[in-house]
Amino acid sequence: MGSGGPATGAGALLSILRDGRPRTRAELAELTGWARSTLSLRLDALLNQRLVAPTDDAIPSGGRPATTFAFNQSARVVLAADLGVTHARLAVTDLATTVLAERSAEMPIDRGPVPVLTWLVESFHELLGECGRGIADMCGIGVGLPGPVEHDTGKPVNPPIMPGWDRFAVPEWLSARLGAPALVDNDVNIMALGEYWAVRSQVKHMIFVKIGTGVGCGITSGGRLHRGAQGAAGDIGHIRVPSFEDVVCRCGNTGCLEAVAGGGALAARLRAAGEDASVSRDVVGLVRAGNVPAIQAVRQAGREIGTVLASVVSFFNPSLIVIGGDLAEAGEHLLAGVREVVYSRSLPLATQHLDILASELGDRAGITGAAVMVLEHVLAPDAVDQAVMAVSGG
Amino acid sequence: MGSGGPATGAGALLSILRDGRPRTRAELAELTGWARSTLSLRLDALLNQRLVAPTDDAIPSGGRPATTFAFNQSARVVLAADLGVTHARLAVTDLATTVLAERSAEMPIDRGPVPVLTWLVESFHELLGECGRGIADMCGIGVGLPGPVEHDTGKPVNPPIMPGWDRFAVPEWLSARLGAPALVDNDVNIMALGEYWAVRSQVKHMIFVKIGTGVGCGITSGGRLHRGAQGAAGDIGHIRVPSFEDVVCRCGNTGCLEAVAGGGALAARLRAAGEDASVSRDVVGLVRAGNVPAIQAVRQAGREIGTVLASVVSFFNPSLIVIGGDLAEAGEHLLAGVREVVYSRSLPLATQHLDILASELGDRAGITGAAVMVLEHVLAPDAVDQAVMAVSGG
Repeated sequence: MGSGGPATGAGALLSILRDGRPRTRAELAELTGWARSTLSLRLDALLNQRLVAPTDDAIPSGGRPATTFAFNQSARVVLAADLGVTHARLAVTDLATTVLAERSAEMPIDRGPVPVLTWLVESFHELLGECGRGIADMCGIGVGLPGPVEHDTGKPVNPPIMPGWDRFAVPEWLSARLGAPALVDNDVNIMALGEYWAVRSQVKHMIFVKIGTGVGCGITSGGRLHRGAQGAAGDIGHIRVPSFEDVVCRCGNTGCLEAVAGGGALAARLRAAGEDASVSRDVVGLVRAGNVPAIQAVRQAGREIGTVLASVVSFFNPSLIVIGGDLAEAGEHLLAGVREVVYSRSLPLATQHLDILASELGDRAGITGAAVMVLEHVLAPDAVDQAVMAVSGG
Repeated sequence: MGSGGPATGAGALLSILRDGRPRTRAELAELTGWARSTLSLRLDALLNQRLVAPTDDAIPSGGRPATTFAFNQSARVVLAADLGVTHARLAVTDLATTVLAERSAEMPIDRGPVPVLTWLVESFHELLGECGRGIADMCGIGVGLPGPVEHDTGKPVNPPIMPGWDRFAVPEWLSARLGAPALVDNDVNIMALGEYWAVRSQVKHMIFVKIGTGVGCGITSGGRLHRGAQGAAGDIGHIRVPSFEDVVCRCGNTGCLEAVAGGGALAARLRAAGEDASVSRDVVGLVRAGNVPAIQAVRQAGREIGTVLASVVSFFNPSLIVIGGDLAEAGEHLLAGVREVVYSRSLPLATQHLDILASELGDRAGITGAAVMVLEHVLAPDAVDQAVMAVSGG
């Protein structure tokens, strides 16, 4: 410690300041236990990088007010994308995930990687322009995809509804065109990460259930995303539910939860019954318009999802289940169905303090999580130390 | 660092040596990065405590052989107990979980805490005598109980089949009589801990399923036990299985996995069919004797357990499922039923590299895990530092 010059330790200092609270040199010296000279070197390195800035918040206490320093969350920007099956949401955020510009558009993922990602790059340039930032301000790109992603490489692996994307090197393709690190994960993991980081960081064991065209969940345990052995954890959409053995799923199996209770399945069933519905958002529209068959279908879907979650609760004992995704916009009907079954079927000990709530971030959970994924990477203490070292020539 | 005298840091040194490999002072200096004088102080502290001893393993390389030092696993002993519903297993182990003396006995848990624990204390004294050790050699007691245990206090909480045990302060009761820290957890967690620590430490995400009178599982994720929000994680015995809505469980609900596929349920069903079976071990006996109804019942139980595990695999994506507990002694029939359903029903990505194996530790998984639980506590670096400090008067 203290042997690496200004670089080693600057990242640790930034980690302290990332909570947004301005602090004086004296406060920082006490928090870190560093000598004043060491602290000054590291603070200067962060000031040079504009990652930290002096603030005007100091309260005069008689004499000359001490200068305070705070995390400069607008120093860089992040490009974040949440690519769904039919729909995409993009944003430029600052270093605290505040959205500076965003866009929502129809963009079917089955057009293939090059058309979709080319559109993504163009859109990012436009969004950067909208908020008056340049590509040089950008520190990383985060992308969520609607299928399994190999964690280490960021490549989609056998995604069932993404023709042409299998093993496509998404991070490399984007990095080459945008000149910054790109990180890719599946959409449900980034939604869980966003919700956890932004509004649920006090919750130890959380399950974020996305109910859109399909059904899946992201799991956080002790503040970390649980990805499982092949990064396939959370894939509850293809768990078989009883009494639906004849329903064929797009995965080729029968009786999958997604084929019974996913937004795509609900839309198809309502369409067959004469209602005007082709995607999960149409189901939400019908529910909001008071359409009784749609309301009944959504509530029953909640019960079927609740059946699977009841088992998951007994196994995992989470303290919170968050319901998100398109269909969650249908409001209390879905949530009521889920609660009805989970609270009656899971073990009393496991449901005693279990909350089942709608996502607070709503349709921004994905882009927030995509930004968080980038920030965890580029603002990690080691990464900051290296960046500072590269600039200072050390 | 280096400011706390010989105590601070001795625990870290012991952690390095706990792998059992003898090392020279030079090797230890290189591994720790400590100055020779600092290393000597800390090594002397561990030598004084007999936790480390000089070894004769040094290979002469021309000149005078350098002295090597190794973890002295026989310096202290641990008392370990795995208390089941009807049966108890006790052991005295050394500091590397090697069993020095053990005992297996019928001891129904429903006799209540004071009779069972009084018997336990007497038996521990006898076992210590058998291996020629005294109570002063003993550094801690680890106990597994067949019901939910509150992790922080070690108290059983509403255990369904343990009359009189609810909120009984087991750790305090044992500590007062044996004069050492006592740690208590539920039996499935300690079995998972034992199996993980002794033979599966390279496995990142493991589920240990105990199939005895009841059914439950212990979960390790990234090397840590996942206990869940209320310590209730792994309680899969009361997940409802389809088509058995009429079967009443001892918990009061219907259709629970345990009421369908637990060893107690199997014994009852075979007894009703005229076979001689009253507990799960009798079922194993019948299977070993080639009794066809028993073989069929065990295989079908494997399938029912497999149905629940298939969902768990999709949700959690483990790399290994270990099958243990009394009924696992029935061998391949049970395992075949589990594999049959899990491999056909879970997602291909999640089962691609999934192993489903019998416990390697068998009926020693529980006592091994009970010992590991104690060692993780008393040999944790901070605990060792404090012990050294207490002795050296620092």
